[in-house]
Amino acid sequence: MANPVVVEIRRGSLVESRHRGSIAVVDTEGSLVLALGDVDALVYPRSAITAMQALVLMEAGAAERFQLGDEALALACASHGGEPGHVAVAEQMLAAAGLDASALECGVHWPSHAASAHALARSGRTAAAVHNNCSGKHAGFICASRALGVDHRGYTDPAHSVQRAVKAVLQDLTGVQIPDERRAIDGCSVPTWAIPLKALARGFARFGSGKGMEPGRVRAAQRLRKACAANPWHVAGTGRFCTAVMEQLGERVFVKTGAEGVFCGAFPELGLGVALKVDDGAARASEVAMAGVIERFVPLGDEDRAALGRLLHPTLRNWNGIEVGAIAPAP
Amino acid sequence: MANPVVVEIRRGSLVESRHRGSIAVVDTEGSLVLALGDVDALVYPRSAITAMQALVLMEAGAAERFQLGDEALALACASHGGEPGHVAVAEQMLAAAGLDASALECGVHWPSHAASAHALARSGRTAAAVHNNCSGKHAGFICASRALGVDHRGYTDPAHSVQRAVKAVLQDLTGVQIPDERRAIDGCSVPTWAIPLKALARGFARFGSGKGMEPGRVRAAQRLRKACAANPWHVAGTGRFCTAVMEQLGERVFVKTGAEGVFCGAFPELGLGVALKVDDGAARASEVAMAGVIERFVPLGDEDRAALGRLLHPTLRNWNGIEVGAIAPAP
Repeated sequence: MANPVVVEIRRGSLVESRHRGSIAVVDTEGSLVLALGDVDALVYPRSAITAMQALVLMEAGAAERFQLGDEALALACASHGGEPGHVAVAEQMLAAAGLDASALECGVHWPSHAASAHALARSGRTAAAVHNNCSGKHAGFICASRALGVDHRGYTDPAHSVQRAVKAVLQDLTGVQIPDERRAIDGCSVPTWAIPLKALARGFARFGSGKGMEPGRVRAAQRLRKACAANPWHVAGTGRFCTAVMEQLGERVFVKTGAEGVFCGAFPELGLGVALKVDDGAARASEVAMAGVIERFVPLGDEDRAALGRLLHPTLRNWNGIEVGAIAPAP
Repeated sequence: MANPVVVEIRRGSLVESRHRGSIAVVDTEGSLVLALGDVDALVYPRSAITAMQALVLMEAGAAERFQLGDEALALACASHGGEPGHVAVAEQMLAAAGLDASALECGVHWPSHAASAHALARSGRTAAAVHNNCSGKHAGFICASRALGVDHRGYTDPAHSVQRAVKAVLQDLTGVQIPDERRAIDGCSVPTWAIPLKALARGFARFGSGKGMEPGRVRAAQRLRKACAANPWHVAGTGRFCTAVMEQLGERVFVKTGAEGVFCGAFPELGLGVALKVDDGAARASEVAMAGVIERFVPLGDEDRAALGRLLHPTLRNWNGIEVGAIAPAP
């Protein structure tokens, strides 16, 4: 059975393209509040679980030991645009741990924020690992290694203490035992573990509400959520969906995108978690689908509704700025 | 009914993402040789029909009048990467018509070829309309206007002589009358006309084989095909699918990509035309689907088969160059 169409791309009078997907909204007990498509399917969460990965950093005591502020904690939960402000905080995290950017094992790519990439080139410099959208998460893994007293080198290896701890956190929050063969390699070389979509949503219900987690983990999760809500630009960047949502809705909504059309989130006050996957991997669709879920579940004021409306119904403009179509949730 | 899955994205031991789509392979009479999914669906061909748009340039006598060489004719059929060599030929075309880049109405974007974008920024310059992937096609529209003796200004307007001529060519080749309300605006501001997928394929069967076209148009189409086969780099650019296919297979295969997952092509010796559309608009899937169609229909030597195999089964590597998955035609 094909998953339903969740997002449409309209141009002129026609639907030009269609995105199918599955959406799970779940409470802390794991009961489905919304299920669209195959919510039992195994999904690699990719970077949608950065905040769960960052729990390892918190529980290792790295935030205290290296005096990581809220900007650094938000960056540890980020897939950032490689803008100068992102890069600076990643470098500060590494320096706090007595290291530098040569410790990063995420690989190199140009800033995904186009203007920052052009400015970097204009200045005569070139891309480095700190510009990788995962450099904050990796700086976090490195700080966690140091706080745990283990060699940070090889921190992307599934056998490294930090990655073993990440797997344990994922299993605890999602309530799913993850066999070793469900492991693949992420874009930034860390392991990514396949988890049923609805279990991922349950993990975020717990992460957001604190229900079903031990007290130390509740405090760690709360600190990460507050850091992201206070510094949404550090979680993504200029013009980005995660940033826009958390700038507007603050602590009421935690959202994090992942590669290949994955999006996860939590509505802490409601005790709900969300996980969704667009079949074809398109971010333009996972964003609109997540905006639709937020609109459906989160009580919104007029300003919230207006801001969310722009994310839920993006206008497509061409290179001359002419409106040529729209992205919209499927009817 | 959902279209079938045509391309899979594999990571680790799982299929991570799936692309559905429809594929039509048709002979010059319009008989379907292969039909996958809904081949009657209306599709905006976008830039997959640049070669049909360029027939207007040829039939206006612009190639002779402005002494446009094969590189220019290939660029008129292109969605190029904005590499310096592409930009130079676009500027030559405009100069031949007594104009310059200020005549372009395609809008501005940075070169899609990343290294060229970085080099442009590094040199202290910024993006201009000549870097737009459609600047060669637009230079062609401008040359056509001048050759027709009409004002080139407003050449992107549906009422302009050049766009009316494009519509007439499309109707003639596809055998479909296109109502005015089936018009939308393309990324570069020219009209794009919705056409049933199988009619689009028929149009390319005719374009490739010459069958069912008047003699002047047969010669024009042949000159354009030969220009593209001889200059495949000018049709797309470094590292691009259309370029790789035509570099390897020469005049045996004409292919041209369009936005939103459209791909069109012709197998002239076989008298067949191809049109395919990936539902979700992903180019990574439309390319693999087109490679699959070529492998199925075109007689290939060992070298051809090896080259095509790399396009049919791309390896996915992460930022550290580690193999993390693959793109493959659905089983």
